[in-house]
This record gives sequence, C-alpha cells and structure tokens, in this order.
Amino acid sequence: MITLDQARNQFIAAVNCSNRCEIVSLDAALQRVLAEDIVSELNVPPQDNSAMDGFALSSRYLNAGETELKISQRIPAGSQGDSLALGTAARIFTGGEIPAGADAVVIQENCEYDQLAVKVRTPVSVGDNIRPRGQDISLGARVVGQGKRLTAIDLGLIAAVGKPEVSVYKKIRVAIMSTGNELIDPGQPLGKGQIYNSNRVMLLALCQHLGYITIDCGVVGDTLAATKSALRQAAEKADIIVSTGGVSVGEEDYMKLAIEELGTIQRWKVQMKPGKPVVFGSIEVQDLVTPILALPGNPVSSFITFQLLGLPILRKLQGQQQSKRVAFMVEAGFSRALVTREEFIRVRINRSDTKHIKAELFDNQSSGVLSSLSWADGLVRQAIGAQINKGQLAEFLPMENGVLL
Amino acid sequence: MITLDQARNQFIAAVNCSNRCEIVSLDAALQRVLAEDIVSELNVPPQDNSAMDGFALSSRYLNAGETELKISQRIPAGSQGDSLALGTAARIFTGGEIPAGADAVVIQENCEYDQLAVKVRTPVSVGDNIRPRGQDISLGARVVGQGKRLTAIDLGLIAAVGKPEVSVYKKIRVAIMSTGNELIDPGQPLGKGQIYNSNRVMLLALCQHLGYITIDCGVVGDTLAATKSALRQAAEKADIIVSTGGVSVGEEDYMKLAIEELGTIQRWKVQMKPGKPVVFGSIEVQDLVTPILALPGNPVSSFITFQLLGLPILRKLQGQQQSKRVAFMVEAGFSRALVTREEFIRVRINRSDTKHIKAELFDNQSSGVLSSLSWADGLVRQAIGAQINKGQLAEFLPMENGVLL
Repeated sequence: MITLDQARNQFIAAVNCSNRCEIVSLDAALQRVLAEDIVSELNVPPQDNSAMDGFALSSRYLNAGETELKISQRIPAGSQGDSLALGTAARIFTGGEIPAGADAVVIQENCEYDQLAVKVRTPVSVGDNIRPRGQDISLGARVVGQGKRLTAIDLGLIAAVGKPEVSVYKKIRVAIMSTGNELIDPGQPLGKGQIYNSNRVMLLALCQHLGYITIDCGVVGDTLAATKSALRQAAEKADIIVSTGGVSVGEEDYMKLAIEELGTIQRWKVQMKPGKPVVFGSIEVQDLVTPILALPGNPVSSFITFQLLGLPILRKLQGQQQSKRVAFMVEAGFSRALVTREEFIRVRINRSDTKHIKAELFDNQSSGVLSSLSWADGLVRQAIGAQINKGQLAEFLPMENGVLL
Repeated sequence: MITLDQARNQFIAAVNCSNRCEIVSLDAALQRVLAEDIVSELNVPPQDNSAMDGFALSSRYLNAGETELKISQRIPAGSQGDSLALGTAARIFTGGEIPAGADAVVIQENCEYDQLAVKVRTPVSVGDNIRPRGQDISLGARVVGQGKRLTAIDLGLIAAVGKPEVSVYKKIRVAIMSTGNELIDPGQPLGKGQIYNSNRVMLLALCQHLGYITIDCGVVGDTLAATKSALRQAAEKADIIVSTGGVSVGEEDYMKLAIEELGTIQRWKVQMKPGKPVVFGSIEVQDLVTPILALPGNPVSSFITFQLLGLPILRKLQGQQQSKRVAFMVEAGFSRALVTREEFIRVRINRSDTKHIKAELFDNQSSGVLSSLSWADGLVRQAIGAQINKGQLAEFLPMENGVLL
C-alpha cells in the first residue's frame, strides 16, 4: 500500500498538459486556465491621481495654519488638468489627475471654499491623498501568472491593465463512466436489486462546476466486453476517463481486467479511508494514449477519492497550478482511536462563539452514506498513526459548494 | 454610521424572493436554488445489501471455528436472490441484495471456497458486512431542503432517491453598472486622465460564477441625466441593480441624486473599511420597484462591499438560505492598532507546518490596489475597538475562486 501523498505524486507525474491554447475575451475567461503570464504594459494608475474630492495644490505654498489660495481650474475624474499656476489650487475630484506643479490634495472637509478660492484649515504634507502612478500595478509587473485558474478578481486585474483577451488552455474533456448492473437512472422505476445511480450526476456536475467539458458515458454493465467497448469509445473522445465501481478484485469486477487488456495498468491500494482500491492507467487505442482513473463505486468513496486524487490529475492535464490546500485547526467534538489508513471524517462546524470552532461528527461514517457529505461542512483529516482526542485540535478541510478546498 | 451587521440586516429585510419557480432536470440543476423540500419516497438502499464480495449466510448455522456450507446460489449486484436454503450460503457481491434467511456476509478473504462449498474461518455476527435498508436515506426523510443552492453532492443525493428533476427558483437578473467619466474598456487606447474599468468585468464574472443572470449596463457618464436614464433602463430589465462609483457626496457624484429622483433612497455610512459609503434604495418605474445597491468605485471597496453586503441581498432575492460564514483562527503575522471601523485586511496564509498557520499582510492596503486581492488567500477581520497583536490569533475569512466564503 502507498500513502495518499505518494499516490497523488505518482498520478500527477504520469500525465501532461497538452499545451493546446486558444484566445478568449475577458468576458469568457472566468475559470479558464491562463496559458501565458500577463505582464502590464502600463502603470495603474497611469498618472498620479486624487484619492478624494478636494483641492490639489503645492504644499510648499502652504504654511501651517490658515492659508487661502485662488482656484485656477477644475479637474473631474477622466479629464486632464493644466499645469498649476503658481500660488493657486485646483478643484479636484476622486480619480482626477494631479496637475503638474501640485504635490498634495487637501480633502474638501478640511477646507472652506467657494467658486473662486479655498482656505485650507489643516497642515499639508507632500503626497497627501494622492494615489501615485503605478501604486496598484507598475509597468512590467507580472499581474497574473501562467497556470492560474482565472477568478473574477484576476479578470478585474487583467482588465485594469487594458487587455481585452487572454490566451488560455483549451478545456480538457473528462469522460464520466459508471459501472454496475445494479445502477439505474433517476426517473426509471426501481427493479428488484437495483439502486439509483448517484455517481454519474455527482461527478458530471463536479467537473462542470470546475469548468471542464464533460462526456457522459452513462452506466456500463458488469461484463468484460461491455466495459472494454465503453472504454475504447471514451478514449477516442476524452482527455481522461474517470470511472466508478468495478475496481475490487472480485469476480464481478471487470474494470481492472479491461484496462489491462486495452492498455497499461497501475493498481494501487491507497492507505486512505474512504477509498483504498484505485486503479490508474491508460487506454491505448491506435496512437492515442488516454489516462484513466478508476474509482471505487460507493458514492462517498468516489467523491473523496475524486477530490483528493482526481482533481490534482485534472489540474495537471489542464495546465493549472496545483492548489495549496490549507487545513484549519478546529476543536474536535469527538475522539477516535489511532488509525492505520489516512482517514477523512465527515464533520459539521459548530461555531458557538468567534474563538471557539468545534467539529462535530456525522454518526454514520459508512462510505455508502452520501447524505453525510451533503450534511457536512468539510472533512477532518486523521493522519496515519494518529488519534483524535475530544477537546483537542484537529485538522479541518472545508468544503464549499460541494468542492473540497 | 451603522455597523456592517446592521446594514446587512436592513438590506436583507428590504427585499423579497419573487417565488417564481421552474422545473429543471438534475443535469441542469447545479448551483440552482431549490424551491421545494426533497423528501425521499424510498429507502436507500431499498433492501439490505452486501457491503463486500463474500458469502451471505445465516450466522446461527455457524459455530465458532471452521464451518463448511454448500453454496446454493450466486447473487451479483443488480440481481435478486432466492430465499436461502437451510444450511447453505449464497455467493454474493458488493451491492447484491441479501437473500431472505441470511443475516450476515463473510468477506471472501476470510473463507476457503470453490464453486460448490465455502469454509468460513472467522466467527460471524448478525449484520456483518450488511448495509441495512435505509442506511443512507430512510423513506420520508428530507434529503435536501428548500433554499439550498444545489451542489454536486446534493444532486447525487437527489439522484439517489430517484428524482430526475427538481423545482428551483428562476434565476434572478443582476444589472451591473459602472459610473465614471475616467473609465474605458480594455482594448481601447488609454486617453489622458483615463483608467481601464476593472469593476465591470469583475462584478459580471462574480455574478456569473454564482449562477445569476447578468445584464451588462457598461459605463455611465458623470451626469445626472445619463445616470437617471441608465437606471431607468436597467430597472425595467433587472431584479436588482448593482452599481459602482458616484456614491460620495461630491459635486461629481450623481448616483445618490439620481436614485433620489427616481425612487426611494436609504443612504448608509457603514462602519467598515474598505467600504463606508454605500447607497441602498429602489428605482420606481411605473409599478415596478427595483432595488439598487450602489457601491463605492475603488475596486477593492466594491469587491468587499459586494461580497459582504451585496451577496446576502442577492441570496435573499434568489430564495437562497444565508450562508453561515465561518472565520478560522490563524496566527497574525502582523500587528494593527485599534480601529473604529470594522476592517478587512488582505492577507496570505503561510503554512510552515500543519499546526502553525500564519496570516501575512499585503504591504499596501489601499482600496485602489486590486492586485492585493488577487494575491490574497482571504481577509483578516478586525472588529471595531479591537487591535491585532503579532503572534496572537486573528479571525480569517478564506477566499476561494475569488469568492469570500
């Protein structure tokens, strides 16, 4: 058995980004992965401008105490002033460019003024209320780096440096395949021995949520021929196949055998719970080598293995930098004996006061119990060889919108 | 001045969900807000089934020690067995229905077996390796509640109870409007005194990311007539208008005046930083009353006020339950003197080891510096009247994908 970290590293090492790019407009770039560094060709702001409504003036003309200056011009945002005449002030508004000859802005609340003149009632220092040129972004600065999945903030930043479009990696296509004779789709009548398939909908939605193109392979029956045929078809259309079920060593488990016969297989028992049996390999159809990640069939196991092992592979294929997952320390509301596999425990956060955040356990941690994941705010991680003691700190991985952060 | 909490409560109280619903298929329901409770009309699993590959048998026929049973039938997943003949075992596979007469499953690793008979090498207790009927979801249980924004997990859960479609609230339409003569769109040459507009792209992307329909109102010039005309048009098309800029009291700020002339205004100075001037009110065009939230123009201010004040309003309009924001305690890598406004400080998390999570400050906390938000992992909240001491714990609000959780 290998650890989760070892498995993740081996999986990531086995796949590569295609480096296929396309140019998209900023309006269509949300969640896309940047294929270039965005370097600013300008200063933001491009010139010194006023942070407030007030009066732009030269601080050296002002002594301490009350001082009166003639108002020689008016500079709203978006317009350019003239050089400031000696001994005068410019009426200026937030965002207005500081005119040559001025080195400070006095806010209007600290002045008495009419249309013609202003009396300044406070001492003034050089730079007061001025946003200096390049304060936000300086010419030549790298604004957003290659490999970043673009957020709304990143798009705002790219807009700020004037770029209307960006080069991004083409979206990868993820084929989602469920296996199991017992599975039927919601909306159909439930026959004896059958259950409704939740993995298909869940994994398709997760991949769509994360911005991947999904290929729905539906449910594949428990025969070697059906499994091989479905894998061959999926391999032709997808950049990666993610399947659920059929990965144990049982007589009714055909996924491992099918991959073996169609390509190359690496089989892991990963020292994690839920999880454990995971198959990673590739389907080789003519010249095409398509990676496949075959996950266990229990919905909680498939969800957690997909998040912890699948997403890093998808990120690598998509050209996205790996995320730095941060576990927060919270008080454990429960105890658990030492474990020999790395465990991920479904918990809900109970925040009785600001400084006291407690994780409470879902009663049934069975990997068949999907309702526990919907109930949970996240997972407590229990390391191999560690125990959890009630009242002490434990590592908490938050989930948001059904995605483990 | 009112506090952030007071402002949020007043804003939320002022708007209502339209309760307009539509039926969508599960495949199209991701991120939609549920307009009904989903109650299960079945048990999941519907019958006791096997958690493992092995042998289903009656535990009372087994004594301690080695025991041999004839194999009378084979039950793969998805098929229904017959009643178990006395003194026999059924070959069973993960997900296979437990036959009448059996009360335990022995995993194959603890057996010796061939096609005809099985020797059990371990003691067996009633219920071993059986997933009982209704273990995940019991008949009549509420699976997902009205007002939940549906995650991939929720969709999996709804699929598990056999529902192919759900009733959701119709998506609200959010109009995004920027004001300011200084603003131009990326891709255009930058004139003197101008800057590129980052708020438009950022807020449109944020709303799209959260699943709202967006209406792009572009940039409105700094005149009362232009502002009123743009507001009137937006009010006819949108369920809410979100604008940036023009909310100060200056001579060049027309947003407040325009709202006043077209409808009703409530103006707040909110005791927060970045932020402070925020206008909330409504535009009244004939019978139509459209709420408007007018945010400050600095990109960091508009982002933070939108997240902390805007999103709760959008959730209420959309029929979504309010999220329970959890602040995690992290070590402050910096000190800050006592503040009189609630401050939100851009920080990055430095995780030197598992148990030591430290928040580090972005040097420039100016509200014009959007690059600080892209750099940040989240915000440290500094309460009114509180100081932050280096090395002590501070409240951290994580951001993920550009959204404050």
